[in-house]
Order: sequence, then C-alpha cells, then structure tokens
Amino acid sequence: MQALWLENNQISLRELAPPQKAHEALIKIRKAGICSTDLEMVKGYYPYTGILGHEFVGEVMDAPDKNWIGARVVGEINAVCGACEACLNGRPTHCENRTVLGIVNRDGVFAEYTSLPLANLHRVPDSVPDEMAVFTEPLAAALEIQAQIQVKSTDRVLVVGAGRLGQLIAQTLSLTGCDLHVVARHTLQKNLLSARGIRITSEEEIQPGKWDIVVEVTGSPDGFNLARKAIRPRGTLVLKSTYKGDMTVNFSSIVVDEINIIGSRCGPFEPALNLLEKREVDPTVLIAEEFSLKDALKAFEKAAQPGVLKVLVGIQ
Amino acid sequence: MQALWLENNQISLRELAPPQKAHEALIKIRKAGICSTDLEMVKGYYPYTGILGHEFVGEVMDAPDKNWIGARVVGEINAVCGACEACLNGRPTHCENRTVLGIVNRDGVFAEYTSLPLANLHRVPDSVPDEMAVFTEPLAAALEIQAQIQVKSTDRVLVVGAGRLGQLIAQTLSLTGCDLHVVARHTLQKNLLSARGIRITSEEEIQPGKWDIVVEVTGSPDGFNLARKAIRPRGTLVLKSTYKGDMTVNFSSIVVDEINIIGSRCGPFEPALNLLEKREVDPTVLIAEEFSLKDALKAFEKAAQPGVLKVLVGIQ
Repeated sequence: MQALWLENNQISLRELAPPQKAHEALIKIRKAGICSTDLEMVKGYYPYTGILGHEFVGEVMDAPDKNWIGARVVGEINAVCGACEACLNGRPTHCENRTVLGIVNRDGVFAEYTSLPLANLHRVPDSVPDEMAVFTEPLAAALEIQAQIQVKSTDRVLVVGAGRLGQLIAQTLSLTGCDLHVVARHTLQKNLLSARGIRITSEEEIQPGKWDIVVEVTGSPDGFNLARKAIRPRGTLVLKSTYKGDMTVNFSSIVVDEINIIGSRCGPFEPALNLLEKREVDPTVLIAEEFSLKDALKAFEKAAQPGVLKVLVGIQ
Repeated sequence: MQALWLENNQISLRELAPPQKAHEALIKIRKAGICSTDLEMVKGYYPYTGILGHEFVGEVMDAPDKNWIGARVVGEINAVCGACEACLNGRPTHCENRTVLGIVNRDGVFAEYTSLPLANLHRVPDSVPDEMAVFTEPLAAALEIQAQIQVKSTDRVLVVGAGRLGQLIAQTLSLTGCDLHVVARHTLQKNLLSARGIRITSEEEIQPGKWDIVVEVTGSPDGFNLARKAIRPRGTLVLKSTYKGDMTVNFSSIVVDEINIIGSRCGPFEPALNLLEKREVDPTVLIAEEFSLKDALKAFEKAAQPGVLKVLVGIQ
C-alpha cells in the first residue's frame, strides 16, 4: 500500500505492506486530516519514525469481532495496555505502555490502511459525512476541556489562538452560553468565528486579570504570556498546545494569584460524535483543501502555510 | 510604642506612635510569629517599608463596635475594599485594592499595637492558648489547600518540604487519612513528623509519576522539579511557596500529562481555630524559641538559621 513515511525529519511516499495484526481491526482509510502535531513532527519535535497521521475516518475491513466489518469508524489514538496503574484507574489516555497512532510506536493513517484495537473504534452515525467525521479526534480534544473543568454559563472565557484547534474549541465553548471572546489574527479565522456569532478581540483590548477561564492554544510563549496576563486571581488557565523547549515563567505571581493551570490533551470521542450528529458544531468550515494520498507532500506544504486551517488527505 | 521597622532591607527597632484609625480595631499584640515571608522581605524580595509581621494573637483595646473590646483575637491579613470585582465575587483575599498586614501598605505586628478592620478579626476560643493561637494564620494557609482541592482519603499525597509551613500542611493533610509522605531533610523536621505518625521519605525513594497530589512548599526550583517528577498524569501539583525570580519549566510535558498546577496562598481562619480548639493539630511543637520585642533582631537571626522552625516574639 502507499503510505506517507516520516524518518529523520523527512516525509516521503513509500510502498509498504498493509498492517497485519490479527488481534486488531484492519481499517481502510477514507479521509485523514493534517494537524499541527503532524507539522511539528516533521520539524523533528518528536522522535518518531513510521507512517504519520492520526486524524481519520475509515472502514473496517477485517476484525477479531466480525460484527465490525464494514463499519465506518473513527479511532482513538492511544492504544493502551489495560493493566497499568493509569489504565486501572480510569485514565487510559495516560497508559504507561501506550502506543499512539502516528505519534508513538504505531503506524498512522496517511496510508491506504491502518490498524487499531477494536476498543479504540467508534462507529460514525450515518448522517455524519466523512468530511465531518475526520474532525472527531481534534473535536474530542476540544471537548477534553469540559471533561476536565466546569465552564459555567456565567464565566468570562478567553481563547487565545484561533487556528485549527482554537476554532473547534471556540465552537464547543460557545455552546455553553458563556461570555466567550477569541483572540484571532488572520482574516479567515475572524470570519469563521464571526459567522457563528463568536466575539473576536485583539491583544490590545484584553482586560488584564479579568477572565475566569483562559484557553491557550497558540503553543507560543507570547500566547502563554498573554493568557497569563488575562486570567483573574483564582482563574483557570487551560493549556491546549505543547511548547517548543522550556518556558520561563514567574511562578510567584501564580502562587499569589492562586492561578490554576491545567494541561489538556486527548478527549472523549462520543460527545464529539454527538455534537457532529446534531450539527451543533461545523468543523467543515475549516477545510482549506483536500489532496489525494499521492499528493500528500503538497498537502503538507499547504498545511504549513500561515493562516491555512485544515488540509485533508482523501485516500479511498 | 516600640516596633520593628523594615526599610531598605534593614530591620531596626523604632519608637513610633501607636496606630490611630477610628474605623478599625486597635489591637495590643500578645505574641507574634516570624514566617519565611518575613525573612524574605528582609532580604528585599518585596518592596515594603513599614512595621514588619503578620502572624499574631492580641487583645482588642478599642474598636468601632465596643462589644469587641477585651476580646482575644487573631486577624486575617488582607484588609479589603468590599467593592471591587474580586470582593463582590467571593474572593476577598484577592481584593484589587487590598492592603496586607506587614506586607503591603499596612503596618504589621512586630510592635506593641497594630490595627485592623473588625471584619478581619476572629475571637480565639478560651481553651486555645496564645502560643497556639499565634499559628492561626499559617495554619489557615495550610488549610487553604483543602479549600481549593479535594484531598481524597484514597489519595497518595506527597509534601515536598518540612519547614514551618510544611509541618502544618503535613499535620492537616494527615487528618484526611490519605496516604501521606513528606520529604524532610533536617532531623528535627523528621522527628516532629514521626511523632505524629507521618511517614517520611527521601528524594531518592520517591516513585516518579505516582503521586495523586504533590504539595511543593520549599520555594526552590529543586523542590519544584522534584514535585513535578513525582506527580502522576492528571495529578494536582499545589504550589504553597513563592519562588525567587522566574523559573524555567517544560510545559509541553505538563500538557501531555494533563497536570493541574494550582497556586495556594492565604486560607480560612475559622477551620484553623476549630482544629486548634479540638487539638487535632499541634503547632506548638514547631516553637524553637521566644524572644521579647526588644530582642526582635536576635529573634530574626535565630529564625534565619537552617532547620529552625518557629520563632515567636512575645510582646505583652
């Protein structure tokens, strides 16, 4: 099969054997999405060699449980042991022995086929088209915020960053009725938010120390500093992006202001599919362009351009 | 009156007029305690000029409400406006216009008299002697942890640091029944903990990534790094100490592990007085020595010695 291989900061198309794991589902990929993590991995931020990609919708071709064959599915990216302390205590996404689809020791989805344990799969409702379903993973990551902290309808909430993930976070937080503002830079980012009635703010307009919840989704020290400035004493600062290298931060002020900082990563798939089925969110507005797998390198070039949101790879 | 004055990183005894604020209580200080913040202020970590000290027990000599006269009291250190957003939203310790006893724009308690608004005062139960009551403020700070986060009886909890505040935190957390371990260095620190059946651990023994809650109370980057290493994914890291200058931290791992970091400062006085009254905690074991006010400089020298816990200043 054709697959996009990452090795030594280089991606290239290769002809590889399809995965063969008798205890896992064999999945034919229909569409896959390029996310910021993929772009960072190509830059070498994570030590990974293998097939890239972790956002997908596909069809089960074979499985240990034959009831799954033919199902259109999305898949959670952490494949877990079920036996470690994290797994046994209800934190499977933190499994100590996990492999992660297209990220850690597990071939990903920019390929004709991938494989995952059945426990990772979720059936996609018929009414949810592929171009929506392919956003289930990042939408779940957005919803992780509300799995971790309570967002009250009365909260003033600021989202710093309006890129791929920031847009999905803004769409989901907007459903709480909270007083939501988003710091956006690019015109397209602003237009997409405005179209959903989400308020946009600029860095200059942000009142310091006034926001109950701030979600930092730029992954840059500037974004972090802006978010830190905006949060009120005893407020909650949610970090949704990883940062290149270490960051230098004044922790004394975090102690004095009793700030709550919480890291946030992978989220729950079922609520994401629910929201897609009910059309409460619309991730398809993020789609910039779709490329075929043979043009995957062009797809990555496109996705790396400033202001470009989601680039899809349509595979079969 | 005699008072310990801080100016330009120098403390000295001065003869000053007693405070005269008609709308506040005039309090005769009975005993005051030296805390790490006082020592840091002398080192110049905070820009403050005035009478130092914020831990005290005293007697009300005059007050706008005469019912308070003669009452033996302790006092919350934040004097607040009652009108700002923080005050109106139930966060008075974060009042935007606050003065702080012996710390920010308000003369403190290493003096014969101090003054505070009546709203700051709490009557000390008769059964609680002065040498216990003087610990109400730091004990309240210890209890702030349990005002902010839930400490479950089933949690594995690590306290990093067993100095003045660390001892009080350990005593209060021990009451939850949780699996509590404390990193202590000095023999006296260890002996005090052991005497209460609290388990001691060394840095080398700490299992990384296994602790549900870690309380960092050293105020040093080494302590922070140890605490960060110890906390499990989705665990809660409570910061009880301020840090000199900025700290360089890997936030990506905090995001990936979904760590919750929470700053913690001043706490609730009534629960502290309750625990003292019921003798559920015993802060008096921390007392190293008591000096008279005229020997306050010696008291500060003593308090600055490594391994010395609480030094009191007995005033009247």
